[in-house]
Amino acid sequence: MAVVLPGSTAEVAAVVQYAHAQGIAMVPQGGHTGLCGGAVPDASGRQIILNLRRMRDILSIDTLEGTVTVQAGCRLADLQQAVEAKGWYFPLSLASAGECQIGGNLATNAGGHNVLRYGNVRELCRGLEVVLADGRVWSDLSGLPKNNSGYDLKQLFIGSEGTLGVITTAVLRLVRQPRQQLVALVPVPDIATALRLFGAINDEMGEALTAFELMSDFSMMLVARHFPEVVASLPLNSAWSVLVELSRPGTAEDLLSSFSGALDRSIGRTEMNDAVVARDLVQGSRLWAIRNAIPDAQRREGPSIKHDISLPRGQIAGFISELYPLLQDRCSGVRPCVFGHLGDGNLHFNLSAPSAGEAQDFVLQRERLERLVHDRVVAHGGSFSAEHGIGQLKRNEMARYKDEVTLDLMQRIKYALDPDNVMNPGKVLPDR
Amino acid sequence: MAVVLPGSTAEVAAVVQYAHAQGIAMVPQGGHTGLCGGAVPDASGRQIILNLRRMRDILSIDTLEGTVTVQAGCRLADLQQAVEAKGWYFPLSLASAGECQIGGNLATNAGGHNVLRYGNVRELCRGLEVVLADGRVWSDLSGLPKNNSGYDLKQLFIGSEGTLGVITTAVLRLVRQPRQQLVALVPVPDIATALRLFGAINDEMGEALTAFELMSDFSMMLVARHFPEVVASLPLNSAWSVLVELSRPGTAEDLLSSFSGALDRSIGRTEMNDAVVARDLVQGSRLWAIRNAIPDAQRREGPSIKHDISLPRGQIAGFISELYPLLQDRCSGVRPCVFGHLGDGNLHFNLSAPSAGEAQDFVLQRERLERLVHDRVVAHGGSFSAEHGIGQLKRNEMARYKDEVTLDLMQRIKYALDPDNVMNPGKVLPDR
Repeated sequence: MAVVLPGSTAEVAAVVQYAHAQGIAMVPQGGHTGLCGGAVPDASGRQIILNLRRMRDILSIDTLEGTVTVQAGCRLADLQQAVEAKGWYFPLSLASAGECQIGGNLATNAGGHNVLRYGNVRELCRGLEVVLADGRVWSDLSGLPKNNSGYDLKQLFIGSEGTLGVITTAVLRLVRQPRQQLVALVPVPDIATALRLFGAINDEMGEALTAFELMSDFSMMLVARHFPEVVASLPLNSAWSVLVELSRPGTAEDLLSSFSGALDRSIGRTEMNDAVVARDLVQGSRLWAIRNAIPDAQRREGPSIKHDISLPRGQIAGFISELYPLLQDRCSGVRPCVFGHLGDGNLHFNLSAPSAGEAQDFVLQRERLERLVHDRVVAHGGSFSAEHGIGQLKRNEMARYKDEVTLDLMQRIKYALDPDNVMNPGKVLPDR
Repeated sequence: MAVVLPGSTAEVAAVVQYAHAQGIAMVPQGGHTGLCGGAVPDASGRQIILNLRRMRDILSIDTLEGTVTVQAGCRLADLQQAVEAKGWYFPLSLASAGECQIGGNLATNAGGHNVLRYGNVRELCRGLEVVLADGRVWSDLSGLPKNNSGYDLKQLFIGSEGTLGVITTAVLRLVRQPRQQLVALVPVPDIATALRLFGAINDEMGEALTAFELMSDFSMMLVARHFPEVVASLPLNSAWSVLVELSRPGTAEDLLSSFSGALDRSIGRTEMNDAVVARDLVQGSRLWAIRNAIPDAQRREGPSIKHDISLPRGQIAGFISELYPLLQDRCSGVRPCVFGHLGDGNLHFNLSAPSAGEAQDFVLQRERLERLVHDRVVAHGGSFSAEHGIGQLKRNEMARYKDEVTLDLMQRIKYALDPDNVMNPGKVLPDR
């Protein structure tokens, strides 16, 4: 019906009050980088989009407290640059940083590369201001790390994808900028070896481990094929590769010697000849470029079916060896493109279409293949949506995999905060 | 009316179903270490106490995932010992570890010494099983660090002090056991110097800083008077002392040299002659004993009025210098005993009775003095309950300091989950 671009919390509240009074549904919207349709209106033409991009001010940076107060429409990259200029670091690390907005990051409880060390964005949030479904403003921007006075209401809004209110302002936790960094690309023959390396690094210097990313040989090959300049002369002859990032604010200790020790103990000196270790930011960013190019490379390769899953780390090897033959059985020649945040147990378990055959045929199998993957995920104790959320795309999965009590509690919370169902209806909660 | 000691989640559910059907109110209870009366029934004699102490099993320790699954009645110290026997560490550190129970820790979102590095217990919780007010069981014990499939319902129960349900089982995050530790007692002339040291340590090795505790000279003197064996020959001639704990899983780096550098840059070499540095666990525990003896020493000294406050760190010095004369003005000779978790901005701002005069007179001034302290806390952007919660004792403060929207949202959540108000009524939420 309309796209509204409010410039302040008061303007958001005024629009919401009006829409609520008229019974008009609203869709809060950030930087259009969500992958599940959570910020996309339905086809009725009777919903209002509330896009917060004009509310992009960084209101204050508190260098003693280590916090930043920022409006929801601020782009993640702009926030990162502003705090880095003051010697601080906001550790949410997403490929979409140049477009995504803080409000959307919070509404979807964004994850990314650094969850291992700093948690999801939920753990980085110290306070919120929210316009509720009836247009009232709820605000707790004190930013205190310890405050046990009543229910922690901000937790309700984080990750609820705009169904309980519109986040307008946030207080976020900062950390000291890393001054020492090591990035390494380590080829490994199997998941078990990768997890052995993970364990050894944790033993030796777990507090410095900021990322532990897995890439299958197929996902690396796609990057080499579609972005040859990114991969350059790297070895590509192992079944899996792990991208490790270690970082520390101090300079007193030597990350390289600790890392070499961990490599030696977990993989063995003779096996680790192919490990590529970058010790400065430029070299490190080249290794990260490989990891970050995978989604685009997969897009160029043709159609794909994507899954954003998490599993207990100990279940991953079994899950994969069980699923691969089942997938071939159902869809001969399907090419799994597996990569992601192994340290968190979160994999992007994507399927590329068989190289022979009709792309159209493959896409028609989406539902069948998704069912197969998600059934196995749940059977192994995992989640069918690790970091991308539910939006519109995975509401059927909610109905299928969530138990009655969980769905009932979610409905009760939704009804308590939005009894008229005007705030982003048709998202997250399945139809009942 | 009765104390019920269920032995399983099914037994808790059966009791709650029965009580809910009969309209009988229930009070979930752990280890009796809460400080705000949250687990104490009212005087009507018509409430059932649900004490979970028989449910004390450690169900599993997953050393790959780094998690433990434990029943709510398990004592914190028992849990710590069990995971330490396997080389892991549960970083919730409370003086009451020998009595308090995991369920109570979660229901009150317990804080303690190590919040600085590991967060409140909320950040350590990966999953919960809860018996709801009507006796249904809600369970999410998958323990996944990343799972964005619907509202994060466990957040509702953490810190809600048993008013929304009874926590029966939890999955908790573990970390690697520190193998290198440094504890130091550093005399400082003022809060500003203490915060300079805090900044320098964060710059140099923030990821290793596990505690940063403040003690006033009066609080140290009380320990020296009532527990002389604890203080031994330590210097006691500065206005404030800071207890610093650094720890790391690895052994490769030298904490002492990093720490000395930070001391030098923040306080200056000439000033730091009195710093006492312990480098092994025994010496370290002697320094911790001083900090931990303060509450008991204050008890032996006579009556006191306690405040569990948090403030933005930059506000603390101004808050104290403003409040001290006001306190003397209202209550001549009152002796503030200030100590606590400076790194989190959380102080135990306790008042000991004047040494001359009637103790009884002092206790009668509780309400007036509390009002004075909490008014100033709120004026400085702080919280009147940083880690102890609300229970029964601070419900008036909730009514006084929380805005209408916050109280309305809390009531809506309470009503959504416990419409018959049978789950720990008369706690946390103020009368409306």
